[in-house]
Amino acid sequence: MAQKPKVVIIGGGFGGLQAAKALGGKNVEVALIDKKNHHTFQPLLYQVATAVLSPGEIASPIRRILHRYENVQVVLGEVVGIDAENKKVKLSDDSEMPFDYLIVAAGARHSYFGHDDWEDDAPGLKTVEDALEIRRRVLLAFELAEREAYLTGVKKHLSFVVIGGGATGVEVAGAIAGIARTALAGDFNLIDTKRALVMLFEGGDRILNTFDPKLSEHAKKDLEDLGVEVYLNSFVTSVEAGRIKVGEKWIDCDVAVWATGVAASPLGKQFGVETDRAGRVLVNKDLSVGEHKNVFVIGDMASLKQENGQPIPGVAPAAMQMADATAANILRDLKGEPRKDFKYFDKGSMATIGRNKAIVEAGRFKLTGFIAWLAWLFVHVISLIGFKNRLYVLSEWFWAYLTRERSARLITGDAEELQDALRFIEGKHAANVEIKANKTAVTTK
Amino acid sequence: MAQKPKVVIIGGGFGGLQAAKALGGKNVEVALIDKKNHHTFQPLLYQVATAVLSPGEIASPIRRILHRYENVQVVLGEVVGIDAENKKVKLSDDSEMPFDYLIVAAGARHSYFGHDDWEDDAPGLKTVEDALEIRRRVLLAFELAEREAYLTGVKKHLSFVVIGGGATGVEVAGAIAGIARTALAGDFNLIDTKRALVMLFEGGDRILNTFDPKLSEHAKKDLEDLGVEVYLNSFVTSVEAGRIKVGEKWIDCDVAVWATGVAASPLGKQFGVETDRAGRVLVNKDLSVGEHKNVFVIGDMASLKQENGQPIPGVAPAAMQMADATAANILRDLKGEPRKDFKYFDKGSMATIGRNKAIVEAGRFKLTGFIAWLAWLFVHVISLIGFKNRLYVLSEWFWAYLTRERSARLITGDAEELQDALRFIEGKHAANVEIKANKTAVTTK
Repeated sequence: MAQKPKVVIIGGGFGGLQAAKALGGKNVEVALIDKKNHHTFQPLLYQVATAVLSPGEIASPIRRILHRYENVQVVLGEVVGIDAENKKVKLSDDSEMPFDYLIVAAGARHSYFGHDDWEDDAPGLKTVEDALEIRRRVLLAFELAEREAYLTGVKKHLSFVVIGGGATGVEVAGAIAGIARTALAGDFNLIDTKRALVMLFEGGDRILNTFDPKLSEHAKKDLEDLGVEVYLNSFVTSVEAGRIKVGEKWIDCDVAVWATGVAASPLGKQFGVETDRAGRVLVNKDLSVGEHKNVFVIGDMASLKQENGQPIPGVAPAAMQMADATAANILRDLKGEPRKDFKYFDKGSMATIGRNKAIVEAGRFKLTGFIAWLAWLFVHVISLIGFKNRLYVLSEWFWAYLTRERSARLITGDAEELQDALRFIEGKHAANVEIKANKTAVTTK
Repeated sequence: MAQKPKVVIIGGGFGGLQAAKALGGKNVEVALIDKKNHHTFQPLLYQVATAVLSPGEIASPIRRILHRYENVQVVLGEVVGIDAENKKVKLSDDSEMPFDYLIVAAGARHSYFGHDDWEDDAPGLKTVEDALEIRRRVLLAFELAEREAYLTGVKKHLSFVVIGGGATGVEVAGAIAGIARTALAGDFNLIDTKRALVMLFEGGDRILNTFDPKLSEHAKKDLEDLGVEVYLNSFVTSVEAGRIKVGEKWIDCDVAVWATGVAASPLGKQFGVETDRAGRVLVNKDLSVGEHKNVFVIGDMASLKQENGQPIPGVAPAAMQMADATAANILRDLKGEPRKDFKYFDKGSMATIGRNKAIVEAGRFKLTGFIAWLAWLFVHVISLIGFKNRLYVLSEWFWAYLTRERSARLITGDAEELQDALRFIEGKHAANVEIKANKTAVTTK
């Protein structure tokens, strides 16, 4: 056993997990390290944030997923450094893990373009905890507006702001508009949840800009039909509690969600190799890093161009393909065969808009509307890990579709945190009153 | 509308919710206030703590449960004071709610017998947040032991301590033993989860002491068959990080759970009326408080004797019966009819032990083993709120029963908190090593 080459994998996302599976049962000793005990199916996180699904339905213990592979060890821990020279990974408790091969798949978070202090007021959506925080803020906003209406008679119309018009931003905006118009509508006696304003701000000239322009236009119309106000060419220049600045104008909001920018894991800076503006490592054609032939960087942390000159997108299928290619190259090394360069195969992409619409693009093949949504549903359900999760998510969706109810409408957090949140949002409400006096219309240019 | 008498209900537990339902559609204006947005089905909380169920399956938004009653308003807020003289309830943000009738149903928490500082090291189990915290500690303990085995080669056997031999303590101890022996066993390569030690400490001379002594004995044997060590006449005299003191002996543990003592909500002290040692209000026979004929205290906050001289137990059916009786008396007042005294009808009680055993006692009727467990299952599933939750919980149980898997095995908490927890438990492990040097056997007498 001790003679087998040690492969250490950092990260239990799509890339890391796939690498572990591809090396499972092979003649290597694998250790996968992650600071969480669970893999998160990120494409459905927005449904946790908007109270359709529970965390347990889109996340699975990494240990459970990999338990069939006897040569794969799962380690809970946080990597704080990589010594590529001496082939060691350093953990936060100062312990070290030696490796023969290292696969770094630590992913990315949202980038606040140097303004990390904006995160408190406009959280992103990358982890289960992020999703629960956004869910809490959205549901609390409705609760507090209802409470204010009861205590003071003043009926406030809520406003929600989503920053960034990529797939996540579009999905979150559509889902918030949906929850306000259907699931919550019957449960609030005093406020009219349907009058909640949902605004989406995109810095570029169209949303979903990795898709065909016609599909972008289609998605924008679908969003507007749901009641979402879409503002293009609208850069957010500042974020504060209770308001955001778009260009030179302040816009007040009860909840803001950040869904733009990419910042790769800082572990990418450990190799002395060039990184791009998002902190992604410029990898070699076989995904290895600079002179370190036995260190690979894959997934959202890697920057590599396709043969057509386009960058490989930061999506789950790309990460999984990189994982397979890396595992294959390690096994080739061990057999004394030459490595192969990584080639990305684009299977297409998709995004949902609201309850029953989507857009799908694969090569020249394009779909919109309900049929696209069925395709989206099919792909996402079969990609979910675990038979039971698939069954449950399908039945949750079916239930929500039939009844327009949301199952996962709990506001959680410990009692003190909740009281802090109450005070925090109450403070925002007070701030809003002042801002409203100066409120100006948003111009969209 | 404004002429209808205002009934304010504090608390969305079993009592408060039942009171709101009983007054729903009647000629009164009802406001139910709770600091959470959800009702928690407490009898199944231990299953969230031990990773069988997700929070969303045993908790429902209060607003959703009551949405059919147009005369019932749900308000999210924290009550900090009651002015019974001037008929006003005061909230944490200094706003006030006037009432004509008040029903106080704010429940109870565990009592640490004056040592509230023990709570950090031995949390209780009353809320969804408590359950998630215990789940996190239990799962983290296994993760960290596996990690230690991987990094250092030292295989640690975990020990879990449950303090209190009532229904909650017995259920938690049985479920932890179960998870260690079945659900987790196949997923850990290095440590033997089956060798985890689960110890239950009870201060009295038998567990489940509200049941017939024969049933207590039976339950103790069932627990021991599951591998739980049951210590009777064992008072816990101190709690620290990583260890508890029983009598004069220190016993080290990786996770401790507190499941004893009752401390009624401090709101009971607001009336200048006598309270018992647990802080329960000694209520009048119609559940009103002292001279305040329009203020009622019900559920776990109320102290009242049955006709046979026995106190009414702090269980859900008692709270719900009190709620119905109080609602009926308010409606009698409004019709000018005389009030009726509250009479408790004991429907019996039950407790589960592990995966498929239970005890049931109703009058002279007694059940044990699998049949009792089926009865337990039936009663708990039909009592759950919401058709969908019933369906889901049943299917979760069926799934867990068939596969011995646990669905809800996520360790959540924000990244920093998790790292704190890691460091915290690592600290404990270090402490344990020292303690082990002095470890002595536990004597139980």
